[in-house]
This record gives sequence, C-alpha cells and structure tokens, in this order.
Amino acid sequence: MGIALVILAAGQGTRMNSDLPKVLHKIGGAPMLVHAIRAGETLGPGRIVVVTGHGGAAVGAAARAYQPAVEIAVQDQQLGTAHAVAQAREALAGFEGDVIVLYGDTPFIRPETLERMQAARAAHDVVVLGFEAADPGRYGRLVMDGQNLERIVEFKDATEDERRITLCNSGVVAADARVLFELIDGVGNDNASGEYYLTDIIGLARARGLSAGAVTCAEAETLGVNSRAELASAERLFQARMRDEAMADGVTLVAPETVFFAYDTVVGRDTEIEPNVVFGPGASVESGATIRAFSHLEGCHVSRGAVVGPYARLRPGAELAEDVRIGNFVEIKAARVDRGAKINHLTYVGDAEIGEEANIGAGTVTCNYDGVMKHTTRIGARAFIGSSTMLVAPVSVGDDAMTGSGSVITENVEPGALAIGRARQVTKPGLARRLFEMLKSQKLKKDQGAH
Amino acid sequence: MGIALVILAAGQGTRMNSDLPKVLHKIGGAPMLVHAIRAGETLGPGRIVVVTGHGGAAVGAAARAYQPAVEIAVQDQQLGTAHAVAQAREALAGFEGDVIVLYGDTPFIRPETLERMQAARAAHDVVVLGFEAADPGRYGRLVMDGQNLERIVEFKDATEDERRITLCNSGVVAADARVLFELIDGVGNDNASGEYYLTDIIGLARARGLSAGAVTCAEAETLGVNSRAELASAERLFQARMRDEAMADGVTLVAPETVFFAYDTVVGRDTEIEPNVVFGPGASVESGATIRAFSHLEGCHVSRGAVVGPYARLRPGAELAEDVRIGNFVEIKAARVDRGAKINHLTYVGDAEIGEEANIGAGTVTCNYDGVMKHTTRIGARAFIGSSTMLVAPVSVGDDAMTGSGSVITENVEPGALAIGRARQVTKPGLARRLFEMLKSQKLKKDQGAH
Amino acid sequence: MGIALVILAAGQGTRMNSDLPKVLHKIGGAPMLVHAIRAGETLGPGRIVVVTGHGGAAVGAAARAYQPAVEIAVQDQQLGTAHAVAQAREALAGFEGDVIVLYGDTPFIRPETLERMQAARAAHDVVVLGFEAADPGRYGRLVMDGQNLERIVEFKDATEDERRITLCNSGVVAADARVLFELIDGVGNDNASGEYYLTDIIGLARARGLSAGAVTCAEAETLGVNSRAELASAERLFQARMRDEAMADGVTLVAPETVFFAYDTVVGRDTEIEPNVVFGPGASVESGATIRAFSHLEGCHVSRGAVVGPYARLRPGAELAEDVRIGNFVEIKAARVDRGAKINHLTYVGDAEIGEEANIGAGTVTCNYDGVMKHTTRIGARAFIGSSTMLVAPVSVGDDAMTGSGSVITENVEPGALAIGRARQVTKPGLARRLFEMLKSQKLKKDQGAH
Repeated sequence: MGIALVILAAGQGTRMNSDLPKVLHKIGGAPMLVHAIRAGETLGPGRIVVVTGHGGAAVGAAARAYQPAVEIAVQDQQLGTAHAVAQAREALAGFEGDVIVLYGDTPFIRPETLERMQAARAAHDVVVLGFEAADPGRYGRLVMDGQNLERIVEFKDATEDERRITLCNSGVVAADARVLFELIDGVGNDNASGEYYLTDIIGLARARGLSAGAVTCAEAETLGVNSRAELASAERLFQARMRDEAMADGVTLVAPETVFFAYDTVVGRDTEIEPNVVFGPGASVESGATIRAFSHLEGCHVSRGAVVGPYARLRPGAELAEDVRIGNFVEIKAARVDRGAKINHLTYVGDAEIGEEANIGAGTVTCNYDGVMKHTTRIGARAFIGSSTMLVAPVSVGDDAMTGSGSVITENVEPGALAIGRARQVTKPGLARRLFEMLKSQKLKKDQGAH
Repeated sequence: MGIALVILAAGQGTRMNSDLPKVLHKIGGAPMLVHAIRAGETLGPGRIVVVTGHGGAAVGAAARAYQPAVEIAVQDQQLGTAHAVAQAREALAGFEGDVIVLYGDTPFIRPETLERMQAARAAHDVVVLGFEAADPGRYGRLVMDGQNLERIVEFKDATEDERRITLCNSGVVAADARVLFELIDGVGNDNASGEYYLTDIIGLARARGLSAGAVTCAEAETLGVNSRAELASAERLFQARMRDEAMADGVTLVAPETVFFAYDTVVGRDTEIEPNVVFGPGASVESGATIRAFSHLEGCHVSRGAVVGPYARLRPGAELAEDVRIGNFVEIKAARVDRGAKINHLTYVGDAEIGEEANIGAGTVTCNYDGVMKHTTRIGARAFIGSSTMLVAPVSVGDDAMTGSGSVITENVEPGALAIGRARQVTKPGLARRLFEMLKSQKLKKDQGAH
Repeated sequence: MGIALVILAAGQGTRMNSDLPKVLHKIGGAPMLVHAIRAGETLGPGRIVVVTGHGGAAVGAAARAYQPAVEIAVQDQQLGTAHAVAQAREALAGFEGDVIVLYGDTPFIRPETLERMQAARAAHDVVVLGFEAADPGRYGRLVMDGQNLERIVEFKDATEDERRITLCNSGVVAADARVLFELIDGVGNDNASGEYYLTDIIGLARARGLSAGAVTCAEAETLGVNSRAELASAERLFQARMRDEAMADGVTLVAPETVFFAYDTVVGRDTEIEPNVVFGPGASVESGATIRAFSHLEGCHVSRGAVVGPYARLRPGAELAEDVRIGNFVEIKAARVDRGAKINHLTYVGDAEIGEEANIGAGTVTCNYDGVMKHTTRIGARAFIGSSTMLVAPVSVGDDAMTGSGSVITENVEPGALAIGRARQVTKPGLARRLFEMLKSQKLKKDQGAH
C-alpha cells in the first residue's frame, strides 16, 4: 500500500509582514515547505500533493523545483484545515493507501516520528501526532482513553479538567485515504471562526466506531513559524541541531555558533572549520579538509586534505580535488581544480579546468564572459600562471607551461611553452619627482582658485 | 514655551580605562553623547547645552559634528551634578521655558519617555524620571506621597523602610529653567563626598511649596555605562533592539545575532540580510534588496532589487540604483552605479559614475588618485569593461563602448568604440621547461652553498 | 630545590571521534597540551616530562615544537594514571625536588593555583588540587580531616555520607619526586577497572604517616575535554576569559562575542576591535590601533595608530609601523611596512619592505615566487606604486619613485624615477558595437543549433 503526503501550504502568514508566501521563507537555505517535503519523503511516498493558496504560483514552483513529482492542489479560499485537505481529493482520486497530512510552516518533524506514526496505523484507523507541551497554553488538547484517542478539544471549548491535559495537538494526521476523505465530508463549520477543522475528524471517526490513536514527539519538532522573529528562532534551532550533529560526527568547529550550515551540507570527520564560515545549499566537504575563517561555500565539493580560505568563496560547480589550496579573496565558480593545485590570492576562476599541481598567481582572472557568452579556460598540470594573467577564454595553457605576470593570454599556449604579452619597462630618471611637483603645484592653483 | 536640553558630559569615566572621554565611546557607531542628544532632539528643543569637562574639546567637537547648534558649557572641576547643571546657566541666560537634564553616558532613554515627562510638567513644577529596579541595590530612592514626589534619598542616607522602596532615581529631571537654577542655588555640598547633588533640588522644591512628581520608565532605558564590559552590554542591548525592530518591520535576518546595525541604519521590508553583515553609520537599503554574507556598508544607499555581496564593501558615497549587482571582494566609494549595472568580482570603483547595465570585469580599478588629487571616472550605459582594466582618471568610457582586458585606459573612449592597450602575446616553445630547470638548478646550488 | 612537571598526555580520547590525539585538539589556536605546559611553566620547572601514548609521535613533536626542552616518556599501554606517572621515573632519575602532575586535556589550570599548591607543600608531603563542585556527580571525593586530606574515595566506593562531600578531586598532585615514586610503587590494580590509580597514593601516604593536604580552585579550572562538544565549550570559556581581560585592559571590543583571540594574542589599551575579527597565534597590536571588521591576523605586529581592515589579512611576518593603513582585500606576509605607508585595496604584499609614506595602488602584486624560490621586493619611502603594478621580485623601487598603473616592473627603479611598462591605448571607433552584434549573432546561431 502506498503513501501520499498532503502538505498544507496555503496560508498567508500575515504576521511575517512579507510579500513572500510564508512557507517560502527559508531555514538553512531551503524554504520551510522543502523541509516539510523532505521529512515526508523519507517514507517513500508514491504521491506528494501540496495545497497552495496565497502566492500559489510561487509556492508550487518552489515545491516542484525541489521535487518535480509534486502535484499541486489549489485552495482558493482559506476555509480551514479540513477544507484544505479536501482540495487534495481530486489529485488523489483513485489513490489507495495512507495519507499523511503535513504543514508547510512546520519544518522540524523528524522522519523517525513519521515512521512511528505509520507503524501506529497498524493499531488505529486514524493516528494523530501529539506532543507534551511545557506550557500548553491555547493549544488543542488530545483527550485519551488509555491507548485510544477519544477526541481533540480546542482550548476554548475545553473544560477545566481538559485544560489540565498537557498532551497537545500538532495537527499532523495519518489515515487511510478513503477513510480520511469520508471523515472530512462530515466536518462542518458551525463554530466561532466558521472554519472546517481537520481536528473534528477524530470525534467523527469515534462516532463511526473507528479507532484513533496518538503518537508523541518532542515539542521542538512541532514548532511552527508565524513571524520573522519565530523564523529566526527556528533558524537558530536548526543550526544548533546541525552543529551538534557535525561535532558528534567528528567535525571540529572552533566556534560552532559562527558556522552556518545549509539543510544539505555534508562535512567529513576530522575536517576543521574555523570561525565565521557560511554554507549555502549543495556543499560537501570530505574528511580531513580545512575550511578557514570567513569562507563561503555553496554548490561545491572539497576533497580530503584541501585547505580553503580564509576569505575564499566557492560557488556552484567548484570541484576541488585532494590537497588543493584556495587562498584569500579567491572566487571559484564552475571549475574543476585538480589535485595539489594552488590558487592562493585575489583570483577569479570561473568556467575552468585547472590541472594538477598548477600554480595560479595573485590577481589572475579567467575572462570567461565576452559580454554575450561564457567560455572555458583550461590550464594544464604543473602550469605556472604569472600574477595578474588575463586568460581570455576560450583558451588553454598546456602542461608545464608558464605565463609571464601581467600578460593577456588570448591564444593557446602549448605544453612547456612560455607565453608573455607585456610592454617593455621604460624608466625615466627624475620624472616622478618632477611629476609630483607639477601635480602639487596644479593642486595649489586649484585650491587657490576655489577661494 | 521652548525647551532646552542640558546634557551632562564632563565625567572622566576612570573605569573605562581609556584616554577617550567616556561619552565619546560609541554604541551603534555613534558616541553615547549623540544618542542622548538624539533622544532629546525629538522634543524639538530650541537650545541644547552640553556640559563638558574631561576631554572637553573632543566632546564639544563631537557634539557639534553631530548637531552644529549645540552650545558648550565648561565645567572645569567636577563638583557634582548640580554644579554641572549650574555651568549651563550662562548659556541659557534669557532663555524662558523648560530645561531637561540628560546624561551623556545614558544613551537609551526613549523619546516617548521624555514626552511623558514633558506632559507631567503640567501637574508638577519639577518632574523626575524614575524606574522600578529589579535589584535596587545602592540606587537613590524616590520617596513618593501619592502622586507627589517628596524627596530623593541616597541609599546610604536611607532608613530601613526607605531601602525597601524599589522606585529608583535615573537622574533625569525636567523643570522650568528659572525655577531649576534657583533651586540649584540652594544646593549645598555638606555631605560625605563634598559634592553638589542635583537630587537635592526635590527637597528644596518641596520646602518652597513647589510640587514634584515622577514619571517611570523601563529600567533598561536608564542603563548607564561605566566600564568597557558595560559598554559591550549596552551595545548588545542596542543591537537586540535594532534587530527586533528590523524583523518586526519585515526585514529577513537569517542570523540576527550576527548583523550589526548603526544607530541610523534604515532597511526596507522584504530585504534579506544574510549572516555576518556590518553596517557603519549612514547606510540605507530599500525594500526587496539582498545583502549577502560578510558585507560591510556605510554611508551608502542600496535600491530595490540590488544584490550586494558576499564580501562587498560599500563606502561613503556609494549609491546603487535598482537591480545593481555588486559581487565579492568589491569596494565601492563615492560612486553612483546606475540601474542593472554589474560589478561582480575583485574591483575597486572610487569617485565614479557607472551607467545602466554596464558590466565591469574582474580586477578592474578606477585609478582615482594621482598621488596628489582625486579624479573622476565615467562609464557609459551598457559599456563592457574588460577584466583588469585600469581606468586612469579623469577618464570616460562612452555608452556601448568596450575595453580589452588588461588595458590601461588613459584617454576617453567614445560611445560604441573599442579601446585596447596591450602588448601582443608572444609564445616561446619549450622555454618554460628550460626556465624551470634553470631555476631548480640555481636553487640547488644556493641550497648547497648554504652548507 | 627544583620542580619537574609530569604531564599525562597518553589518552586516546575515543569520544573525540578523531584521528588526532585528544591533547592536540586546540583551544585558542594552541593544542590543549600546550596550555597545560604553559600553566606549569610559570613555576619555572627545571624539567618537563610529557607522558605520551596514543599518537605519541605527534604529541611529542607538538610538545617540543612549543618547548624544545620537553622530555618524552612513553606509556605503551594505558594502565591507569599511576602507571602513566611511573613512566616518567626513568626520565627523572637523579632529579631532586618536587613533581607536579598535570593533564594534557585539562587546559585551564591557572598558574596562581599551581603556585598555591607549591606553597602548600611546606605543610604537607603530598598536595592534591580539589574543587567545590556545583554538581559533584560521579567525581572522586576528597575526605578531609581538618586541614589534612585523609584519602580520595572514588564515587562508586563512597558511603552515603562521603557522597554528600562536595569537595572533588581534580587529579592534579604535587609531591617530592622520591616520595611520589615510592608511593606509586605501592599502588595496585585490584579494582573493577584493573587500573593503577594515582589517587591511591593518598591512602598509602597516610598509612606511612605522611601528611597530605588539599588546595582548592574554581571548578572551571579543572574542566576536562572529552568530546568535540566539550572542546567547543572549552573554547567558549577560553574566549570569554580573553575578551573580559582585554576589556578590563582598556581594549574596545564592539561585539566581544565575535572576536576570537589566540592563546598568545596581545592587544594594547585604547585599541578598537570591530566585530568579526579573528586572531591566529603570534599577533600583537599596540595601543591606539584600529582593527576593523572581518580582519584576520596571525604572526604579525601592528603599531600605534595603524588602521587595519576591513577584510585585511595579516600573515606571519607582517610588521606594520605606526600609522600604517592596510585596507580591504589586502594580504600582507613577511613584510615590513614603514610608518604611514598605505596599502588600501586588493593587494598582495609578500616578502617585501615598504618605505615610509609609500602608497601602493589597488591591485598591486609583489610577484615573489618564480615557481621555485621566493624573492624580495623593496619599495622606497614616498614611492607611488600605480594600480595593478606587478613587481617581479627580486626588484626595488627607490624613494620618491613612481610606477605607472598596469606596469610590470622587472628592473630596479632608481629614486625619483618614473617606471612604466604598458602598451599604448588604441581606440577603434564603432568596433565595440560591431563586436557585440557579431557575438550576439553567433550566440543566436549556437542556440538554434542546440535544437
């Protein structure tokens, strides 16, 4: 039997004070919606339906950018969570199996928690995810009868006794698809807000003689985000989790609180990360590398023994082989850098291949853009590129070749050759002194003229 | 009736362990003294008198640099707060209206608090600002009789009952100028420290049948700074306030605790600020911009849709129009960059105008300084500046023009023209290999010679 | 009478999840082992023995790299702390005086604490360092009888009464060498772990009628490190201590929590350090300097009045004289920069001497490496180096000389001379427009060909 995820992502998020739909605000470099999809994906769902509303086009596009198989259901009016789930009915017509309802603004549910919900379905027709709240406040309460969930009571409808319950409702639900949609048919909107609440399905299920149960998780997993301050707190929680995991995995973080990971960052054992390093999405670092302070890595791969930074920027497509050295104020984009190559200072390498043990001098630029198209630069093994060499792509420099510093290289350089393109130095005795005197006298006149 | 601010700024601040006068230590990039003036300025004062003492020349200069209308009164000897206020008497000769006494080392008083003090003057001849202290410790206590302030008692003079009072004295006072100075005349220094205390005016006022009252504010507003550790705490408090306000205003701060604002930073809604961004004074960012990690902005303006950084430095006079792109290791100073222009890598642009959609290649430098004077560079719309172009100012490149990479541009380039200044590439087969062999053999000899 | 340190550094540190021996993990840029040696060194020990085991070669090398006088004793099997100390017996054969036993993974013991232990030796044959634990948990307890230490009892062997003791054992011990080794001879391994415990010597000493005493220190001093998370906590504690000391010494830290010091960083009074500054080992900054945001300093010296950064990197051997200005995206290595010189933007200066008041233009590179050897660049006083000058070392530019921007300087420039090496600018009217059209049409064809 298959699994379908239904992810509610239609809310406006007024308190975010943003034109961006709430579920597209990011944590660890990925939209909250993507975090929710990722958690559900570990169950191997055959179908994923995202219910969109406010900013629906952007939300749908973001979901499909991450996972092209996502189907979109549109909720034109926000009439409550049961109504939102109902919008997925058409997309799931003919689907047989379980539906798990998740929320696009609740990014921290752990995969293991969803697996426990799945397992609990063996004993119950409907399974709800609850959590023991430190301060239950105005959350809905789960009213249990032994192992059975009797109903979910909203705070405002709860008796004094019920309000003392600390087991609260996360909103996450698992049930057979057919059963779920039948129960939703029975949900009404005869309440203060005039909304159709998904929580009502528990009472309806019990009335029909079906069994309901609850699985519990840590309160932190159910954290929702409603304002930018809460978003910042969620980011903080996410980063703390990533840093703790990295340290447990044997990564050295000199100052963990200054290292920012993306949702998919991978770092190997005995890699050292100095203070103030930022990872964007798509970065992986093997074991035994060193990422020095003030570095920024995204969409790149760093191999064992490589040393990156300080002040190195690795952009998407930067692939560093073993023992590569990338130094300060260096940007690498869409470039393969082979074993042992050194790019130590003030350099831009984009759309390039750099051979083993090549040495790229300070101030070098791969001139990859002609104003219309991008072109490729190829540097051979052990090549020595003199400082401030302009490599006008498409161009290649062969193995063991050399370029003179300050040269503009427009033609290919064969292996072992020296290419140079520079004007001869001319030195004019005494001219600097005379020039300074002239300039100072001009300034004096100008300053006097200003009066 | 007018308002005059008297701001006490004469203290030495011994515990700061600094040659810099205490009130010139900065919070959010502005001297504490400026924070105090700014709070008072919102009342629209006709006169502002700063009482200086230790480091008086520097303090006065800083005050007038911020607000040229400031008048300086000098307190040669530090004989107490009443004595300090008395030094402002001459500057305010003939002034009619209210005086508000503020402190140059108390930077957090909110404008609304001062407005409430002003309002309370309708009911009382003298109004004192108090606060409910979490731990009253050795603060002076406000002894109230209903709505009336009876007197201010110093901790060491207080009875057991009075020590149980938690309403404490901030030192901020509002009164009619004539009344204030008359009361001060009556203050003596017959106390343990031999100082003239401003607090004594309350008892004197009551003795003369005048009415005194208190207005209260949050304790955090009255925070004073006496050591560098306290300065760091005050900065932390200031930054927390700025970050919370920014988030409430709809700014996305991925890691709020790593973003440092100046006292006057303005950031628009739905602008995203990545981790590790520092604002110096005078920076404004419109809505919908992106400030990437490790950027540093001061005295600059960033328009909607612009993307800045990572590792971008915007210095005073950098004006970025909409959709401009400033990339990594780029410094912009005193330059207008028009809509859609791109300066992506390793570039210095100073004293320049860059046209719409222009593209500035990596390693470009506006050579704005000839050793004596600064000169201007003008780049036209859609111009394409090749990598590592040296633009020797004064110089201009026209619309749709292009420069070859590695060129030194010393003469103006007309629109649509291509300017190039580079030596032709010469390639010498096999020479690199021979050179390397020669260098290695030289090194060998040298190393052997070292024995 | 001399003092010998015996520092136990043989443990594997399994929980570190690292190939690096535990004691070589760093705090403040120095291995924990070095912190332990440094604390002990303040006693002026005549002998220092480090007992190594796991990763012994690396541990020994690191110890001697810091302090060449260190002697190494090898503990092949880890049979307990008494067994570890016993391995130092041979190295200390013939030594007369006191032995102090320290731990390579306990980096925070203060020198004053060790001095107090030394002083306490006047009254006791054996002195143990204890601490009042906030939560004694499973620490060993010091059982006192007035001023005398009766014995050290392991938690698992303690009675209920003994478990209520809050004075715990740090493991640090001081005793006469001969006495210590005799006592150790009596230690057995008849316990649950089958290990020889150093703590047993107290009971043995008392049984022989010797006197034992305890000195206490703050719990934080005895902090041990067993996992990377604990290492990060220890680093946090170390940094907090360094920041507090710097502020007390009159250093301005705008955001202390973003400044990272090395174990040996020295910063003078009234120096200002902006947010996000990282110090590696060996950096000293005089009074009255300014270190701006995002700077990275190691192995360098910064003199009074110098301004460094933002985004400046000072590497080992950078020596800045008074009033030097190092700006953004500038790297200085093994270079003396004389008074008032300015290197403001995008420059690499390595293996160089820069004269007083010299001005180095943006994009300048000292081409110090020919692929085999490093060479030196000398720039004279008041010299003006034009932007993007390549200085091909070995080369010198005299006082008051000038280089044209974009020049490659390969020959020495005498004082007062102007050196220039650049091709003349050629401007071709209309060619840029035609080129763009051609490139666009090529792109169009290519894009069409892609279908």
